[in-house]
Amino acid sequence: MKIQFLGTGAGVPSTSRNLSSIALKLLDERNAIWLFDCGEGTQQRVLKTTIRPRKVEKIFITHLHGDHIFGLPGFLSSRAFQGGNTPLNIYGPVGIKEFVLTSLRISQSHLRYPIFFHEITEDGVVFEDEQFRVSCAKLNHGIASYGYRVEEADYPGELQADKLKEMDVPAGPLYGKLKNGETVVLPDGRTIDGLDFIGKTTKGRIVTILGDTRRTKNTVVLAKNADVLVHESTFGKEDQAIASDYFHSTCIDAAKVAKEANVKQLYLTHISARYLNGNANQLQRDARKVFPDTKLVNDYDEFEIALTK
Amino acid sequence: MKIQFLGTGAGVPSTSRNLSSIALKLLDERNAIWLFDCGEGTQQRVLKTTIRPRKVEKIFITHLHGDHIFGLPGFLSSRAFQGGNTPLNIYGPVGIKEFVLTSLRISQSHLRYPIFFHEITEDGVVFEDEQFRVSCAKLNHGIASYGYRVEEADYPGELQADKLKEMDVPAGPLYGKLKNGETVVLPDGRTIDGLDFIGKTTKGRIVTILGDTRRTKNTVVLAKNADVLVHESTFGKEDQAIASDYFHSTCIDAAKVAKEANVKQLYLTHISARYLNGNANQLQRDARKVFPDTKLVNDYDEFEIALTK
Ligand SMILES: [Zn+2]
Ligand SMILES: [Zn+2]
Repeated sequence: MKIQFLGTGAGVPSTSRNLSSIALKLLDERNAIWLFDCGEGTQQRVLKTTIRPRKVEKIFITHLHGDHIFGLPGFLSSRAFQGGNTPLNIYGPVGIKEFVLTSLRISQSHLRYPIFFHEITEDGVVFEDEQFRVSCAKLNHGIASYGYRVEEADYPGELQADKLKEMDVPAGPLYGKLKNGETVVLPDGRTIDGLDFIGKTTKGRIVTILGDTRRTKNTVVLAKNADVLVHESTFGKEDQAIASDYFHSTCIDAAKVAKEANVKQLYLTHISARYLNGNANQLQRDARKVFPDTKLVNDYDEFEIALTK
Repeated sequence: MKIQFLGTGAGVPSTSRNLSSIALKLLDERNAIWLFDCGEGTQQRVLKTTIRPRKVEKIFITHLHGDHIFGLPGFLSSRAFQGGNTPLNIYGPVGIKEFVLTSLRISQSHLRYPIFFHEITEDGVVFEDEQFRVSCAKLNHGIASYGYRVEEADYPGELQADKLKEMDVPAGPLYGKLKNGETVVLPDGRTIDGLDFIGKTTKGRIVTILGDTRRTKNTVVLAKNADVLVHESTFGKEDQAIASDYFHSTCIDAAKVAKEANVKQLYLTHISARYLNGNANQLQRDARKVFPDTKLVNDYDEFEIALTK
């Protein structure tokens, strides 16, 4: 599992930061990629990465501001052009369907795959299968803005075959039963409890990606014990009042959420164009005083999200 | 007057060519810039030029395919963000208004300037003032696609003051009358006809920018005697059949139009991503065999369009 930042700017693009889009790469887990937001120019950013548009299985939209959605019609068209023919699921606030369908209709774009829209009307689970659960909750951004919490299912422990062989338990279909935690009587009369031979469960990963917001309780709820929290940091600590007025966060707001939610790693993104390269580092320095495991990200940055054994 | 190509690719962006957009820079003539088409990523291209979005006075859309319009909502938003507050006029096929207004409404983008839409329902003049006339005619692209012909008014000749002084015609309000071509009687009794002292009229420039099309009569009508013709060249000469099937042109089609219309300069754009840098040169070479004054353009290329004295 990897996370790659395709656009890390706020509101308008700059020459160094494009508009919001994040790829959660689940290639090992399900041979798929999930996008979070799709600002204008996302498809151009994708072109310079290893991401294949046809691998994009789901797109989660945090909110409908232009810098988060105007790249969607173009991305969808290019996905078709580049041979994508598998269904695509789009999750987002009410209105995303009308925007996409109007854009495709007027441009006479005929995609060769179905799009399933999942418009969000209340907090809760928006997607769940055996592998992942994605839930969302409303933030505080003037316009309806959501945060997404992606929870991976736990990995059951491995059967300790070495230990069984040492005890001369014969290999075979028996191992399957033991792996399921069943109790088995061996041909030689011994009774073996599978649970004694199953290793530790590995916790699934939790990745929380928030839409634009000012400080609000749900950020902590969504981020609780996450391996990764992606939080906007439109402003620096000296602009707390402006941030609040514009329904945005400072680097300090983000760091406080990370600390309170006990996350492992905080990524700061959605950086205002007023912070040029050098200045943006100050946001990271300030945030680290509150939460040391903070990284301010740049376009194309990619990070491994490892399992905690 | 200058023309700058912001995006010269076809259909989908590549790492070297972005989607269609052309800036006609009328800074000396009217302190304004006109855009032709606005594919996704146009605002990002603009960022790397000297173009100020607030100077963009008019946007002409040739047709509604996504690669020609998906950058419009973002460009309009950024124009507002960067202080643009003067009215903007958008010309294009029926549907452009719904696309723009839906995008702005759903994204809750509140611009600080009015947009006037001019949806085209028939061939003819779409804009005219004392300085410029813009007319359009339908091309042949499956979807409604237009070409635009921009005609600059002629520059009246200068009054030849040197010649008048030589003849001892006293300077003063008299010169104004002569400049208007009036006949004047001097205090000394001589009669002077202004028309004899006015230099040659300088022809205004003609710039023709066509939307996507296959060979069709209107291309020549629109391009007749133009100083500059911008013509799509999606395909090379070996792909004449494919070009026609997809309602597009080859470099040879474009060159034939330029020749038949007797233009001064042909710019080839809208180059398919199948022609990488080296291969694209072949399109230019082939076209030049038909029409020598051909140039295949790249993103950011800028050319002066000089008056012919
Ligand atoms: Zn934003
Ligand atoms: Zn096109």
